[in-house]
Amino acid sequence: MAAVRAPVASRLAAVSAFASLSPGSRTPSQRAALHRSAPRPGARVALVLSGCGVFDGTEIHEASAILVHLSRGGAEVQIFAPDVPQMHVIDHTKGQPSEGESRNVLTESARIARGKITDLAKLSAANHDAAIFPGGFGAAKNLLCCIAPVLAAKVLRGVEVTVGHEQEEGGKWPYAGTAEAIKALGAKHCVKGVAISFLAAHVDQKNKVVTTPAFMCETALHHIHDGIGAMVRKVLELSGK
Amino acid sequence: MAAVRAPVASRLAAVSAFASLSPGSRTPSQRAALHRSAPRPGARVALVLSGCGVFDGTEIHEASAILVHLSRGGAEVQIFAPDVPQMHVIDHTKGQPSEGESRNVLTESARIARGKITDLAKLSAANHDAAIFPGGFGAAKNLLCCIAPVLAAKVLRGVEVTVGHEQEEGGKWPYAGTAEAIKALGAKHCVKGVAISFLAAHVDQKNKVVTTPAFMCETALHHIHDGIGAMVRKVLELSGK
Repeated sequence: MAAVRAPVASRLAAVSAFASLSPGSRTPSQRAALHRSAPRPGARVALVLSGCGVFDGTEIHEASAILVHLSRGGAEVQIFAPDVPQMHVIDHTKGQPSEGESRNVLTESARIARGKITDLAKLSAANHDAAIFPGGFGAAKNLLCCIAPVLAAKVLRGVEVTVGHEQEEGGKWPYAGTAEAIKALGAKHCVKGVAISFLAAHVDQKNKVVTTPAFMCETALHHIHDGIGAMVRKVLELSGK
Repeated sequence: MAAVRAPVASRLAAVSAFASLSPGSRTPSQRAALHRSAPRPGARVALVLSGCGVFDGTEIHEASAILVHLSRGGAEVQIFAPDVPQMHVIDHTKGQPSEGESRNVLTESARIARGKITDLAKLSAANHDAAIFPGGFGAAKNLLCCIAPVLAAKVLRGVEVTVGHEQEEGGKWPYAGTAEAIKALGAKHCVKGVAISFLAAHVDQKNKVVTTPAFMCETALHHIHDGIGAMVRKVLELSGK
């Protein structure tokens, strides 16, 4: 995980997907070829996964939406995950740990990556214009040892991020308390809704951090998909490519 | 699997995603709540998964795209998978079977369904307007005991389907030989490309079967996403809701 904390994590943020920009030289080897429609080189984006499944890994639909929007934006994507055991394996039909079972984060993440994935230890900020971290409990459990929505707040003093609303509003925002945790760390929380509107992604221009609530809100999947699209477009804009 | 072969499989088709229509009464219980934006009841669609990962289960990005487009179309979705062991577990970083490991198809499919999934044995055609089967090798290995792209040809005599092109064209269509298998079974294969065009989905009006090549083609993910969108829109049109 040190590979994330330094140097990449020095300029990134969290929620259910987040991004960081850094300059550097191009390294074409081991690029994931899941999407190769770009007629010319686009932004070089690292996608960091933490397993395969919302309760013990990466939230699958967030990762898929990010990949669709990066493909549409002509980005060059390389997918990474740490080569470590998962904290535990959750039986997703029960929401309970599956006793006596162990899985590897890199191996499970490869299911989302269709096999084209690189050990996170090999990620170098110099090779990418942006890094995107989808949500899912795996981001907290396997990847960064702290709850994903407050990662940016922990890493970047005074960073602006969004996890959506700050009140539960009758169950619509079940994780609304996360905003308080973010503020307690000295960061600024910006209230956003998940909607088709471009406003669904929040941009911290100073820190070059883009966040979106995604599955923090109990809303329809296509709104989540579109909110992630707004985030990805902002990331690609910031890359200047 | 008998629940699929009769009565649902009596009117469906294959490739990497396929659909079938049948009349019936509404049963609101156990509907997956992954998407609930519809202001009024929409088409009632069963999504049948076969695991979680392209090489031994459902192709994740196809399933996610189907769910995004069904959500956008206001459909009521219920997700199913068979409660049986997977044929094997493939290590997606190596493309090889993982020795000594066993997984359950329903349990793994629940990762895509975010836990809201029903045993396929409980699927009744009377409760759904359409059934959609994403691709992935799990469709052949775990779900229906025959290769997914020729399922329609096996079940429906003379059905029209598409798996894309009929020649490999330098690796662009690596599974092009599948078209011959379909024709050998007496079905009609219709050549299609994966593109943003609405033509990417083929509709057999007589049998009410909609097919799209999806990952049968080595193309960009957003083209696959859009092709699946065309298929889903045609399915919802056929449902008349």
